[in-house]
Amino acid sequence: MNRAEAEAVFSEAAFIRHLGMRLVDMGEGWLETELPLADHLRQQHGFVHAGVVATLADHTAGGAASTVVAPGAAVLTADYTIQLLRPAGGDLLRCRGEVVKSGRRLVVVQADVWAGEAHCARYLGTMSVVDRPTP
Amino acid sequence: MNRAEAEAVFSEAAFIRHLGMRLVDMGEGWLETELPLADHLRQQHGFVHAGVVATLADHTAGGAASTVVAPGAAVLTADYTIQLLRPAGGDLLRCRGEVVKSGRRLVVVQADVWAGEAHCARYLGTMSVVDRPTP
Amino acid sequence: MNRAEAEAVFSEAAFIRHLGMRLVDMGEGWLETELPLADHLRQQHGFVHAGVVATLADHTAGGAASTVVAPGAAVLTADYTIQLLRPAGGDLLRCRGEVVKSGRRLVVVQADVWAGEAHCARYLGTMSVVDRPTP
Amino acid sequence: MNRAEAEAVFSEAAFIRHLGMRLVDMGEGWLETELPLADHLRQQHGFVHAGVVATLADHTAGGAASTVVAPGAAVLTADYTIQLLRPAGGDLLRCRGEVVKSGRRLVVVQADVWAGEAHCARYLGTMSVVDRPTP
Repeated sequence: MNRAEAEAVFSEAAFIRHLGMRLVDMGEGWLETELPLADHLRQQHGFVHAGVVATLADHTAGGAASTVVAPGAAVLTADYTIQLLRPAGGDLLRCRGEVVKSGRRLVVVQADVWAGEAHCARYLGTMSVVDRPTP
Repeated sequence: MNRAEAEAVFSEAAFIRHLGMRLVDMGEGWLETELPLADHLRQQHGFVHAGVVATLADHTAGGAASTVVAPGAAVLTADYTIQLLRPAGGDLLRCRGEVVKSGRRLVVVQADVWAGEAHCARYLGTMSVVDRPTP
Repeated sequence: MNRAEAEAVFSEAAFIRHLGMRLVDMGEGWLETELPLADHLRQQHGFVHAGVVATLADHTAGGAASTVVAPGAAVLTADYTIQLLRPAGGDLLRCRGEVVKSGRRLVVVQADVWAGEAHCARYLGTMSVVDRPTP
Repeated sequence: MNRAEAEAVFSEAAFIRHLGMRLVDMGEGWLETELPLADHLRQQHGFVHAGVVATLADHTAGGAASTVVAPGAAVLTADYTIQLLRPAGGDLLRCRGEVVKSGRRLVVVQADVWAGEAHCARYLGTMSVVDRPTP
């Protein structure tokens, strides 16, 4: 998947566009994103909702996995674990996803989320390599 | 946490209100929710974004955990695993969270998400029992 | 996989035989095991070592998954999460694995471990369906 | 926990001693171990049993967490996820655990297992900080 295709995934995924996630940079086996923090992304105590942090991590991890699969293939998250290390606040979240193991059928990816210098979350996920699905 | 307090958590969590998640029913150790599926909750292949499914599961699990902690205490998700069993489509997601183990400091919760009859996700999470935090 | 084949997996897996794990019963999509607790299975505080509990859960889950794959196929654990709910003691651990979702390439399995009436662990794992591998 | 105390945890944990796990080195926030591979540690296809790999990762992670808690405190694994990246073979497994986040009540630890140059497993676990328990 090249940069233009990766950009398309961000603009075509309605929920990602709606949250405001942006592709920052990418290369073979990694991808970086950021998310400006609007008020509607918070939970009842004023922190960023864990669901937002997890979505950022998961979409970034999927993007990183996409950089290593064959043309015409796509990835779907099979399962993931996320460690919410610290409540996330501030104005901007940054995320970096990195492929840990690239297999023919499964790709394992780690992703980390920061708010400023605070390491907010570590994600470890298993992606299933599939033919690009149609709705 | 009684029903009124639980309703408040749903209305005060901006992101949950924004997604449109609703509390359906609750009791000691369990809580049920639903989420009507609007177009902005989808990913690039037309399915519901995994981040939406995970947010629904996590918030429902947190709600279920809240039914077993002492007054004045709250829960924060420490970590969770989610298995995305099937792509989720249709008009409505339903979720049920159930406490697996209630401890003084940690509460373990399972949650399941359905789209119609399709079991879309299983979630297993660890919640940390905290004093109700302030932003 | 029929009962005789399942028994063979228990007797051919040196580590399982070494621990003393036994197949108790099985059916389509589930399998039950038990493990008598000898002193060499404990950790430094006298409880059963978490590694023993996890091995019991994982091997039982693999056995349950094996009951739903095609003849000639085998399963390998891709990843799992385990919640260690209570320290495990006593004389015998029991475990039941149940298939949550059976796919062509991935099988998701839950397993639970008890020591007497105490629910000690919940396991949730993803198994990869493979041709029966040779060393 | 100093080196002598760490060595004691390895020699007092019967199951760890029984497997043959050895402490290699340690420092503030990390710990390294190794495990010579005997035949009784294998599964039915001749690879090292996943339960052995997971036990090595979990005990090493617990050791790493122990290097950051207060004197008199101990850690118990609350939950962990393990990604089994490749079947493990050969004569020796090596493992390194590193603390990701050290909190007052929870410590998050990552551990990685190698067989020679092959990265066999990544582990991510949550440890609960407790007073040193007695059996």
